Amino acid sequence: MKIERIEAIPYSIPYTHPLRFASGEVHAAEHVLIRVHTDEGLVGTADAPPRPYTYGETQASIIAVVRDIFGPQLAGLDPLDREKAQQIMRRTIHNDTAKGAVDIALWDLIGQSLGTPVHQLLGGYADGMRVSHMLGFRPAAELLEEAQRFREQYGITTFKLKTGRRPLGLDVEAVHVLREGLGEEVEIYLDANRGWTANEALEVLRRTEGMGLTALEEPCDASEALSRRRLVQHSAIPIVGDESVPTPGDVSRELLSGGCNAICIKTARSGFTQATEILGLCTGLGVDVTMGNQIDTQIGSLATVTFGAAHEASQRRAGELSNFLDMADDLLAEPLVIRDGVIRVRETAGVGAVIDEDKLARYRQD
Amino acid sequence: MKIERIEAIPYSIPYTHPLRFASGEVHAAEHVLIRVHTDEGLVGTADAPPRPYTYGETQASIIAVVRDIFGPQLAGLDPLDREKAQQIMRRTIHNDTAKGAVDIALWDLIGQSLGTPVHQLLGGYADGMRVSHMLGFRPAAELLEEAQRFREQYGITTFKLKTGRRPLGLDVEAVHVLREGLGEEVEIYLDANRGWTANEALEVLRRTEGMGLTALEEPCDASEALSRRRLVQHSAIPIVGDESVPTPGDVSRELLSGGCNAICIKTARSGFTQATEILGLCTGLGVDVTMGNQIDTQIGSLATVTFGAAHEASQRRAGELSNFLDMADDLLAEPLVIRDGVIRVRETAGVGAVIDEDKLARYRQD
Repeated sequence: MKIERIEAIPYSIPYTHPLRFASGEVHAAEHVLIRVHTDEGLVGTADAPPRPYTYGETQASIIAVVRDIFGPQLAGLDPLDREKAQQIMRRTIHNDTAKGAVDIALWDLIGQSLGTPVHQLLGGYADGMRVSHMLGFRPAAELLEEAQRFREQYGITTFKLKTGRRPLGLDVEAVHVLREGLGEEVEIYLDANRGWTANEALEVLRRTEGMGLTALEEPCDASEALSRRRLVQHSAIPIVGDESVPTPGDVSRELLSGGCNAICIKTARSGFTQATEILGLCTGLGVDVTMGNQIDTQIGSLATVTFGAAHEASQRRAGELSNFLDMADDLLAEPLVIRDGVIRVRETAGVGAVIDEDKLARYRQD
Repeated sequence: MKIERIEAIPYSIPYTHPLRFASGEVHAAEHVLIRVHTDEGLVGTADAPPRPYTYGETQASIIAVVRDIFGPQLAGLDPLDREKAQQIMRRTIHNDTAKGAVDIALWDLIGQSLGTPVHQLLGGYADGMRVSHMLGFRPAAELLEEAQRFREQYGITTFKLKTGRRPLGLDVEAVHVLREGLGEEVEIYLDANRGWTANEALEVLRRTEGMGLTALEEPCDASEALSRRRLVQHSAIPIVGDESVPTPGDVSRELLSGGCNAICIKTARSGFTQATEILGLCTGLGVDVTMGNQIDTQIGSLATVTFGAAHEASQRRAGELSNFLDMADDLLAEPLVIRDGVIRVRETAGVGAVIDEDKLARYRQD
């Protein structure tokens, strides 16, 4: 089996409402569908989300790098030779979600050609992942209402609170309101998306002591090297690296220099191959991982479940898997379902991301 | 004075011969000319070199990020408010040469509007920079012939040898042949462009002891964190970070984690504003800097001279400024000249990069 060509199809699906973060606001999922075609007629599928404020990619840059660089360089390669594919793609710097999507599409082809679900090829630990739901930038009472609704409707009991606002009291209040309203049994952790300084993050940790928070993700810019090191040393809960650790090399440098002591793995930027490398680095060095979300579609979320459920360490914490609920529609033919707080892996050969061709025709932008 | 719009014009000028490096080979300068237009009719000019194997950018990605993100976000801003421009551009991750070119074009506008050469606005230390010439991947005898020719023709007495080849003996031999042929007075240093492992680099340092080398740049991938730290500890000469340190945050993390102990500054990726920040970091922490070359055109090289000559620390070592000699032509109306081993700054208001419009019309690709 040989790679013949790689399609990069821009498409746009609106969100049900604008999504707001410390680093910006988005109104529609303007992504790129990646399809790797082989000489045997198999097609590997994955989704690339352009995130200029996180990885510097645009729809145009993803299409260009796949069309002009990865497509020609990977043509003729057997999808099973993924160390070769990695070495080829590694020559081009950055372009993380473009690379991640190509890698996942290659794994999809591997699974299809071997007649085996990819979650089994990767490790086969569990048949699903618990879901963590993300709560973002709204008045505390509304956040509590949303959390209660998601617990009721989907059985979700882990919540990630998006923080990084000023004055700090806004987020501190939200933590207190959520803990009081949801009780002791619910897991709550924070993600500041680099919105604070390291010293502000320390202040928030002081003001939320006793609230049972389990982690603080990307509190400040990693370039605040010395202050962030001090924060990590003083924090009672793990400081999770996310935007600062897109590659295995970044993971090792941040961990070794004391910039974080837990790692967020995102298949959208790491694919399955680099995510495996990062997971090994983290379990080997003895730090926790979380499976994160790149505001993923159902295609992207299915990839995260596929990888996350496959290993003991990556399914220990709940995975961030519910962002697709904010989309008005999706390209996936058979929708993802959250039941009893869990999304299950698919038992079909490959990753199982079968595309609804009518919807693709409706939403594609080329 | 307000920014009205930013043009991003793709163009292609052939090299006189293919340029080879450990990380790839290029046949033509396919760059993007950046022009920032103001409401007062002034135009700031700079050059963005797409380097997918160094910064992950393509011509298409540079054009997209300038057209869709930086242009709209910077419109209405006074070019003098460059901390605001920096903050705006920093939101978008990576895209280093696109950002660098926009920043240099803004400085060009600042100089023009104040009627002052930018090298004076930046510091005004010297009226020119000594030139270091890059020798790349050819048999040792040819490298020696080229070095002798450049010394004869341009008065250049500093040479950077591109290395990173296997077997290691190829580069070791080149060092010995150059030193023997050029004598003690000529400065020679190495750049492996991540071509070796850290242990291979240590082996090369052992086999070139006594050859008077003054630095070794980017010996291996910075993601080889522990081995590279050991290399830096054992090396008798400075280990220069280049590809691993595109931003001030990368500089601080690499220096603090022991991944290098000297820094290559490139205006192509840092503009003048971030280059100033990096220079302050390096002089403050007490490490050497070199002014590097991104296979720059004459427009890009003039920017490097403008910044490099302006500060004592950045003009102490010879700057890498001769790559433009490999181009069959250039957009700069008044050509750069290397005389007695030096390129002089321009005493016109701004940076002084006046474009030959006929040549632009001939080489532009849009």
